[in-house]
Amino acid sequence: MPERKIETCLSPGLIHLHNLEGKIVVIVDILRATSCMVTALAYGVKSIIPVSSLEHSRELKEEGCLASAEREGKKVEGFDLGNSPFEYMQPHLKGRTIAATTTNGTQAINKSKNSDTIIIGAFLNLDALAKFIISTQKGIVIHCSGWKNNVNLEDTLFAGALIERLSNNYRITDDTSLMSMSLWLYHKDNLLEGIKQTSHFKRLNRLGIEKDIEYCLIQDKYDIVPFMKGDELVIS
Amino acid sequence: MPERKIETCLSPGLIHLHNLEGKIVVIVDILRATSCMVTALAYGVKSIIPVSSLEHSRELKEEGCLASAEREGKKVEGFDLGNSPFEYMQPHLKGRTIAATTTNGTQAINKSKNSDTIIIGAFLNLDALAKFIISTQKGIVIHCSGWKNNVNLEDTLFAGALIERLSNNYRITDDTSLMSMSLWLYHKDNLLEGIKQTSHFKRLNRLGIEKDIEYCLIQDKYDIVPFMKGDELVIS
Repeated sequence: MPERKIETCLSPGLIHLHNLEGKIVVIVDILRATSCMVTALAYGVKSIIPVSSLEHSRELKEEGCLASAEREGKKVEGFDLGNSPFEYMQPHLKGRTIAATTTNGTQAINKSKNSDTIIIGAFLNLDALAKFIISTQKGIVIHCSGWKNNVNLEDTLFAGALIERLSNNYRITDDTSLMSMSLWLYHKDNLLEGIKQTSHFKRLNRLGIEKDIEYCLIQDKYDIVPFMKGDELVIS
Repeated sequence: MPERKIETCLSPGLIHLHNLEGKIVVIVDILRATSCMVTALAYGVKSIIPVSSLEHSRELKEEGCLASAEREGKKVEGFDLGNSPFEYMQPHLKGRTIAATTTNGTQAINKSKNSDTIIIGAFLNLDALAKFIISTQKGIVIHCSGWKNNVNLEDTLFAGALIERLSNNYRITDDTSLMSMSLWLYHKDNLLEGIKQTSHFKRLNRLGIEKDIEYCLIQDKYDIVPFMKGDELVIS
């Protein structure tokens, strides 16, 4: 049986230090890209195409997709959807494909394509992720999206939460995984208070979206594991 | 009075995200480069010239310097000194200049030259550092050397320890500083146990240097603040 290792990458700016070949990469952008993706697919969206540029998103809109775009935490003018998870619960989205571009999450996906499988992680689907990962025989890299290559607390805390769930089945070999789990253990009983100190919370709070943040910290709400199939995120 | 901010950079691979102009940069490489530098200068070494290459170190040796070189945690063949702090306590080093190259610490110094002042941080001179920093009116960037651009626990813990000492006088604005302080608060009462879990400890422990590690975690032993003056590290 191959040795099962967890690695944690705290920023897309450091992902080149990890060999992704044959591994599962868990993309994390808790506030709010991956939380939105999980929500959308749980509510019946057919698929999500992560794209890097607004132009590509617009092109896909012309081909019949819905287009979502966020820059600097805000929905971009002229797009159908922004980056609030509540937008993705609307019934008319069922069965549709969404072309999505965000500040950080989409970039992290694009930098992970050299792996075996890309899956989408959020607190919302934590239990499903852990069960899926344990069911494989593969090493994993938790790829935190951060904020413009800066390391952030919320993605690191999620990494720690996932590592805690995997710790009986996986070997923790790198300092960043140890650090993420220590941080999670330190903050887990008062998660929102921890997040409220962060730069991203302050940025988002100016946009009036504390409700979004509370939602993004709910654990184990959806029993799905979104994964990349070709250029699309799907759940089956 | 200008606003005094702390920023923490967890890896030299992310230092380009920080604007160093006008700031004090604290270089951290706890195991063991900066701990050695502080020890050497406390024991009367006149100055240390950090250099990137073994060749440059050899050239300076020909010009009369002592030469220290470490690669992969080990002293390089043909050099006068390696990377154990106890080597730097020898009386014959007094008044000498050492040309030093290490895996990570020297590189972090070289990437910080665009700042106002570069100072050298270790647990050994923590109190002196904090007092010096508080006495200035400048923002600071704590630059953790890590291991080949990977983030490590011991440098991050040191960042947290320094931030705790500065927290009444400085504003913490970035997530990495918050994370470092949380990690420090989580591990501080059992620091050696925390460090023993890390990759670097395992690497160094194979080399039989647990005594070095215990020494590098001693706080406030030396009341000095090494700083870069031209190309040399000095204490006055």
